[in-house]
Amino acid sequence: MAKPNLQIACDHSDLPSALKAVKAVGDVVDIIEAGTIFILQVGDIGVKSLRALFPDKLIVADTKCADAGGTVAKNCADAGADWMTVICSATIPTMKAAAKEIKEVQVELYGNWTYEDAQRWLDAGISQAIYHQSRDALLAGETWGERDLERVKKLIDMGFRVSVTGGLAVDTLKLFEGIDVYTFITGRGITEAPDPRQAALDFRNEIIRIWGE
Amino acid sequence: MAKPNLQIACDHSDLPSALKAVKAVGDVVDIIEAGTIFILQVGDIGVKSLRALFPDKLIVADTKCADAGGTVAKNCADAGADWMTVICSATIPTMKAAAKEIKEVQVELYGNWTYEDAQRWLDAGISQAIYHQSRDALLAGETWGERDLERVKKLIDMGFRVSVTGGLAVDTLKLFEGIDVYTFITGRGITEAPDPRQAALDFRNEIIRIWGE
Repeated sequence: MAKPNLQIACDHSDLPSALKAVKAVGDVVDIIEAGTIFILQVGDIGVKSLRALFPDKLIVADTKCADAGGTVAKNCADAGADWMTVICSATIPTMKAAAKEIKEVQVELYGNWTYEDAQRWLDAGISQAIYHQSRDALLAGETWGERDLERVKKLIDMGFRVSVTGGLAVDTLKLFEGIDVYTFITGRGITEAPDPRQAALDFRNEIIRIWGE
Repeated sequence: MAKPNLQIACDHSDLPSALKAVKAVGDVVDIIEAGTIFILQVGDIGVKSLRALFPDKLIVADTKCADAGGTVAKNCADAGADWMTVICSATIPTMKAAAKEIKEVQVELYGNWTYEDAQRWLDAGISQAIYHQSRDALLAGETWGERDLERVKKLIDMGFRVSVTGGLAVDTLKLFEGIDVYTFITGRGITEAPDPRQAALDFRNEIIRIWGE
């Protein structure tokens, strides 16, 4: 079982705050994400700035693209993103159009997706999925449970590399012990910690403790 | 039956092109949309610019928001948007959080939504829906059909104000005759016409011919 990646999500509403956050932790993490809120606020300069600061890291544009996949993907790739996200309710043609223009596409799982949908994504050549506890659902009191873990495992068994995100803390990671998680994504759990760099190191060390180097 | 609105979608990948397009037709249409591609590229300056140019028009931010509804909605409202879109696969807490921060929220219909979902959106106080023929689906050869029209009618009967979009041309509008469509949304059908202003007038005149003044 490979060591899961650690991904930092920059979901700031302005460029300077995001740059400050990522400067502190960018070299500790494996993947840097331009979050949806951030992109909607600052545009492609967000991805371009992350790419300029961290030329050797994987950069994800979390567009949650629902349509016009080709154009959105080309714009993201032009800005320097390696990967982008599409929403699970996008059509297969949208996903395929996106996949032609950027290195990899990740499907963000929200709402009524089915395993039949998931198989169609695999058949379309898309093998990354993001299992998401909605931030708003978390605020409404919902949390990680056995049902979530079973769905993550099932997706991995189907052949997806699965990222998990939503309300993760260092203490939460052990819930996933024994599961071949591809990437843990966290935003505020690191960026709003009293010492963000130490928080990123704590996440990384807990991943190493559980999954090994 | 009220006269449907005409909405122009600016889905340019840069600010100057969008400004040029909207300058030509903004006073002809009822609603001006900052499209998803446009917002992802330029950020909130897109909505702010449309608001500055057309202080008296309805402005929509087509964020297709899937999460963090409160933050995205507040950012859109701060930039001057009257309405914003959420994707149908967003959770109800996300939709409710958005609806608290902006005048109105519109649900964008893609993928596996059900009428049970739709009733939950109504129950959550969200009464605008956008029935969408995916641009990529259109490119793949799918088009408007009786099944689409039945679903639009059903949503209207449930109590939604329904916008329709995707591959609309002046000739397509008559397919909707007798249906209480709230808004027709078109982008390239106007902005990429040889004479965009004339194209907008042609849409408006066809709406008036079918639905009256």
